[in-house]
Amino acid sequence: TAPFTLIAGPCQLESRNHAFQMAGALKEICGKLGIGLVYKSSFDKANRTSLTATRGLGLEKSLEIFSDLRLEFGLPTVTDIHNEEQCALVAPHVDMLQIPAFLCRQTDLLVAAAKTGSVINVKKGQFLAPWDMQNVLKKITDSGNPNVLLTERGTSFGYNTLVNDFRGLPTMAQTGAPVIFDATHSVQQPGGLGGSTGGQREFVETLARAAVAVGVGGLFIETHDDPDNTKSSDGPNMVPLKDMPALIEKLMAFDRIAKGL
Amino acid sequence: TAPFTLIAGPCQLESRNHAFQMAGALKEICGKLGIGLVYKSSFDKANRTSLTATRGLGLEKSLEIFSDLRLEFGLPTVTDIHNEEQCALVAPHVDMLQIPAFLCRQTDLLVAAAKTGSVINVKKGQFLAPWDMQNVLKKITDSGNPNVLLTERGTSFGYNTLVNDFRGLPTMAQTGAPVIFDATHSVQQPGGLGGSTGGQREFVETLARAAVAVGVGGLFIETHDDPDNTKSSDGPNMVPLKDMPALIEKLMAFDRIAKGL
Amino acid sequence: TAPFTLIAGPCQLESRNHAFQMAGALKEICGKLGIGLVYKSSFDKANRTSLTATRGLGLEKSLEIFSDLRLEFGLPTVTDIHNEEQCALVAPHVDMLQIPAFLCRQTDLLVAAAKTGSVINVKKGQFLAPWDMQNVLKKITDSGNPNVLLTERGTSFGYNTLVNDFRGLPTMAQTGAPVIFDATHSVQQPGGLGGSTGGQREFVETLARAAVAVGVGGLFIETHDDPDNTKSSDGPNMVPLKDMPALIEKLMAFDRIAKGL
Amino acid sequence: TAPFTLIAGPCQLESRNHAFQMAGALKEICGKLGIGLVYKSSFDKANRTSLTATRGLGLEKSLEIFSDLRLEFGLPTVTDIHNEEQCALVAPHVDMLQIPAFLCRQTDLLVAAAKTGSVINVKKGQFLAPWDMQNVLKKITDSGNPNVLLTERGTSFGYNTLVNDFRGLPTMAQTGAPVIFDATHSVQQPGGLGGSTGGQREFVETLARAAVAVGVGGLFIETHDDPDNTKSSDGPNMVPLKDMPALIEKLMAFDRIAKGL
Repeated sequence: TAPFTLIAGPCQLESRNHAFQMAGALKEICGKLGIGLVYKSSFDKANRTSLTATRGLGLEKSLEIFSDLRLEFGLPTVTDIHNEEQCALVAPHVDMLQIPAFLCRQTDLLVAAAKTGSVINVKKGQFLAPWDMQNVLKKITDSGNPNVLLTERGTSFGYNTLVNDFRGLPTMAQTGAPVIFDATHSVQQPGGLGGSTGGQREFVETLARAAVAVGVGGLFIETHDDPDNTKSSDGPNMVPLKDMPALIEKLMAFDRIAKGL
Repeated sequence: TAPFTLIAGPCQLESRNHAFQMAGALKEICGKLGIGLVYKSSFDKANRTSLTATRGLGLEKSLEIFSDLRLEFGLPTVTDIHNEEQCALVAPHVDMLQIPAFLCRQTDLLVAAAKTGSVINVKKGQFLAPWDMQNVLKKITDSGNPNVLLTERGTSFGYNTLVNDFRGLPTMAQTGAPVIFDATHSVQQPGGLGGSTGGQREFVETLARAAVAVGVGGLFIETHDDPDNTKSSDGPNMVPLKDMPALIEKLMAFDRIAKGL
Repeated sequence: TAPFTLIAGPCQLESRNHAFQMAGALKEICGKLGIGLVYKSSFDKANRTSLTATRGLGLEKSLEIFSDLRLEFGLPTVTDIHNEEQCALVAPHVDMLQIPAFLCRQTDLLVAAAKTGSVINVKKGQFLAPWDMQNVLKKITDSGNPNVLLTERGTSFGYNTLVNDFRGLPTMAQTGAPVIFDATHSVQQPGGLGGSTGGQREFVETLARAAVAVGVGGLFIETHDDPDNTKSSDGPNMVPLKDMPALIEKLMAFDRIAKGL
Repeated sequence: TAPFTLIAGPCQLESRNHAFQMAGALKEICGKLGIGLVYKSSFDKANRTSLTATRGLGLEKSLEIFSDLRLEFGLPTVTDIHNEEQCALVAPHVDMLQIPAFLCRQTDLLVAAAKTGSVINVKKGQFLAPWDMQNVLKKITDSGNPNVLLTERGTSFGYNTLVNDFRGLPTMAQTGAPVIFDATHSVQQPGGLGGSTGGQREFVETLARAAVAVGVGGLFIETHDDPDNTKSSDGPNMVPLKDMPALIEKLMAFDRIAKGL
């Protein structure tokens, strides 16, 4: 068992400059702390609450930026894909493909992603029990791709609310797949702001501490240099970049205890 | 206000013969009862629990059957689509496109479906509050298509369980869209059989009675001549065809009271 | 099977005059409609959200009023009891003892109530599955009292929200006990107003229609001549007395269909 | 901030000998680890699923044992009370009175407990939001007793299942009251065994680690020398006594990180 890997970045790819600035800052933070980093950003937000919400830079431009980020910083990258066609297009430009939670039961998408040979990170649907993720995992491994991560990001709990059942982490780990905890989407309040999704940034650390103490292979934390003013999604739950070093350092201390490192 | 419309058929399109037999039988039942029918079948089951589960006949063959059913029986038809490409391909062959519950937040799919001009039936996601469906509806109407139905099919309630909140029917009706109650998917037990989804057929009538008494524009009921032996999905929750006449007749009596007909 | 019985009255016993006025009015309504009535009021509200909330007239004075109501109107009455001592004291003055939902697992209370020989109405705890009510029922019948009613009043659904699972009505009916649907407590929003419990009166009819269509032995509806101005509890969810005749008449029409009367 | 206090003991007071043996063993464990201990046992199980389940030794005999335990070991003790009369009777024999979760909204019980002047530990009801515990707390403090602990022990999540929302720990801590995490009742499966309540002992450590990492004033863990063979309640979720030293030592390491000790 090794220290957790950090999957981090701004929710959306806002611009080349912003991506380079964020990736550079995160690489420096993780380098100082001695922790692995996978840079995450979405090139498109396919399921925003409202039609007029900001979506992204477009596929072609985004993929170029992902390739350049990897080249410039030597960082592995991850982005989420939303249909089968995107899988083969996106895979060469990133190191990991992410299946969004709402889409984790879409067989064709799972198979198309699997067949790229990339590492696949599947987010557990808000409507799924942890033990049902073994069926999701099996669709990918049976398609010839053994490199799968499973991510907890909250389960529906009444209306406009998610809850994390931390028993789900060891339950999913029994599949053999590394388990990731997504601390920033877990504090979403789906639909909670009427025309957009709210968030409770103040509980990111609470839930991340719990997850690391339970034991995870990785932590997923969206971060932004100015989350309160961005027009991209997840502003209400992203962690300010300036708070990341202290947060990660604290979480690493729990991780060492959890793993006997 | 008019009597409810019945949206019914076998979950999956199994064969041309089976489709013609089922459509003919349902047309006769609804004709005798004096109730409108939309024939429903899926040409593909894109989100089955397991990779080895039966999926369907393929798109081309299925669409031909849908067109022939419409021609033969003069019946409006509905089927569900799973990605943007399918929308324009499928729309000419059916009268209504259905957005699966897991996909109800996928903006591109909603817009592509809207742009076909077909009537769109959106199933409420198991992870969504009834009042959040107004955002889903708006994505379609803002794309220029005012012909939208909203369908209740259960909300996540703990693990492997759905519950219907019947307050959701009038809440969704406040949008002005007709509200449909899906009685057979509401009794699903997602993931409840391990490698497949279970169901509680014995509660279909219970929930349908409740829905009709509350007031609905339509009822969605999957039915099959031999649901216990079909290899297609939703066997455990489909209503045997032979039970449909008595069930629908009983529900129509509640509908008349509900609407003062 | 017979028409449903109505269990109705103001949540709290406010004064002798108010009780007589309400009981007289309800008796007249039910007499005209030809439906059985059990008059309900609480002599004490033992679990209000705040310490300063209005509680009641006191036990002795209340019991005298219950006896007088019964004498004056020939009406059966029901009230809720909160500890073992109250059971024997209250039983002679009313016809039915009600076990509050929060207390439905308190063995000593169930046994003490059972031993009075009164009819016992147990409300299903918000934290209990319908099938677990057979254990509650058994504690009473094993204490020698076979006269038990089981009441559905909502199940916890996330925070500050209840949901009715209408599958619970036939599930509880399998015990052989008559099943009552409590339409006004089902629309409570527990803790929803901060220092007190809120309610959604607008959904009382919705849920009562659903329940009657599914099939119930009785309906429980709290009502008040001026629910918006009372200081007693459950103002936000009680039905105005003037709305009761039309509501009950409509529900009776569904009941006749449900039971083939 | 200080290290967490351990509240531990067998669920039920089984016999004088067993109580002395358990208290002695726990005192030795906590003494070696340098951690505070409050000895917990119930003299009565008032809400067991079935009438025939083992209840306890009786009040008088139990209180004598509590007094003797305190005298013999110099240990503070806690037990739960179920009605107002018990409060004044029990308080002189123990150091802390515990309000069961199902009873946390019973005003008279809270006030009677408060007036004893004992420290009061209130378990959060499975049906309550964390922020609603401030109303419960206020009933006690407004009765003149400022010494209150609030305990998280799970929230209803669908049927026969509890979930811990770890955001609830800091939410309840905002009241100023110390927050306790009850690790063994949190893994209960209410009603899960039909005639009794099941449990998932294998998740006690998982949830306790999460709670300590988030930050708690105390941990509540029921333990028994032979939990699989005891007839007392909570066998399926109690921690074997022999596993306690390693468990507590591990949890103390997380506690030091959480509190910067």
